[in-house]
Amino acid sequence: MNSSHSPSDRPIKALFFDVFGTLVDWRTGVAREAAAILHPQGFGLDWAAFADAWRAEYQPGMEEVRSGRIPFCKLDLLHRRNLERFLPRFGVTNLSEATLHDLTLAWHRLDAWPDVPAALARLKRQFTIAPVSNGNISLMVDLARRNGLSWDAILGAEVARDFKPKPGVYLSACAALDLEPAQRMMVAAHSSDLAAAAACGLRTAHIARPDEHGPGTGERAPSVPVDYAAKDLADLAERLGV
Amino acid sequence: MNSSHSPSDRPIKALFFDVFGTLVDWRTGVAREAAAILHPQGFGLDWAAFADAWRAEYQPGMEEVRSGRIPFCKLDLLHRRNLERFLPRFGVTNLSEATLHDLTLAWHRLDAWPDVPAALARLKRQFTIAPVSNGNISLMVDLARRNGLSWDAILGAEVARDFKPKPGVYLSACAALDLEPAQRMMVAAHSSDLAAAAACGLRTAHIARPDEHGPGTGERAPSVPVDYAAKDLADLAERLGV
Repeated sequence: MNSSHSPSDRPIKALFFDVFGTLVDWRTGVAREAAAILHPQGFGLDWAAFADAWRAEYQPGMEEVRSGRIPFCKLDLLHRRNLERFLPRFGVTNLSEATLHDLTLAWHRLDAWPDVPAALARLKRQFTIAPVSNGNISLMVDLARRNGLSWDAILGAEVARDFKPKPGVYLSACAALDLEPAQRMMVAAHSSDLAAAAACGLRTAHIARPDEHGPGTGERAPSVPVDYAAKDLADLAERLGV
Repeated sequence: MNSSHSPSDRPIKALFFDVFGTLVDWRTGVAREAAAILHPQGFGLDWAAFADAWRAEYQPGMEEVRSGRIPFCKLDLLHRRNLERFLPRFGVTNLSEATLHDLTLAWHRLDAWPDVPAALARLKRQFTIAPVSNGNISLMVDLARRNGLSWDAILGAEVARDFKPKPGVYLSACAALDLEPAQRMMVAAHSSDLAAAAACGLRTAHIARPDEHGPGTGERAPSVPVDYAAKDLADLAERLGV
């Protein structure tokens, strides 16, 4: 614990999870899937750079929705548009519709960090657990089935029809479960996500994912006040007494 | 199989479930909960009749939303309003706010029919499974946790912001999972629900719940064409080859 909140004020009833980076390793997975799809078509690229380039379009793509310039759409659609935006920079052109579609679904085939499946099952015994991700529902379903995660509900962007860190996404998740924000805790590897959740009244837990963008590149510790700062999900479960 | 569809046309990928009556025994549960709450306060009522009276307000309450007379609200809110509407007929007045709230949550404490938990776990191995119920998300979460049901996602009224049998509820559930209606199957104990789902292009499976409204009162067989008519959920799993 490294904050002014006292976790014993009110019991936490539900945990909300960020997914990309916090629960799943998007960079390794996207690189692997892109190689598996494009290498047989004759492309030899820096696949990690490919994943990074795709992820770099992530926030600007969502910002168009958050700002109201375009209506809400599923993250899958933004991923597809972002893909077509950066592909030319890698000299990749003339992909078939089927290949573009398959590439977009790479984000549905990511692996969880090794600590996640067992720790999440453990946390579910005591807390209602739900992803509050910018990913769409089908994306969350596919990641959960692939990695053996068992959610109580899938909340987040598609239910709120907006993207984090807009307050409406956190508040809609709280409203769906009928409890006050103080009885929820947002769990994420990104301080910006936690700061936005805290501003909505949620409790917060930071998970260190030092290798998110490649070895030694992720957040080792939160840069904002949080209720818990854990080294992984198992550590968080331990500290929550589960 | 008793319909003109051939289930082998296209593979079914997901099963959508009606919940009240199809998966859980609302009548026994509501009667039990009402007795547990009101008997200690001195009320001796026909508890099954109490449950029936509450359920009788169900469709008229939702119709106000479906018709656009009032905006969408969670089923919990309609249950509360409906409760206050019929209570005087049972001579029950002056209940405290806490009692009214607790009574409303009786619908969160219903038991599944005995065949449901194991059959649903079996069906999940092969299909994506989600409730497409008029119940709100927190209600679905509480029923699932109580009965050990493990959904892939919670879809239905609160996500669609309207109530069945409006087409938008079925279609929004299909859209959330990215597949065409023909790759979905609605599973319900009520022919009206299945007819509405079929009109949206979904496949349909009827589950016999002959005791839904009391012994011998439920639908033993569908009154509309369906793809499958099963005697319970285990029978459906068997016939789907799971």
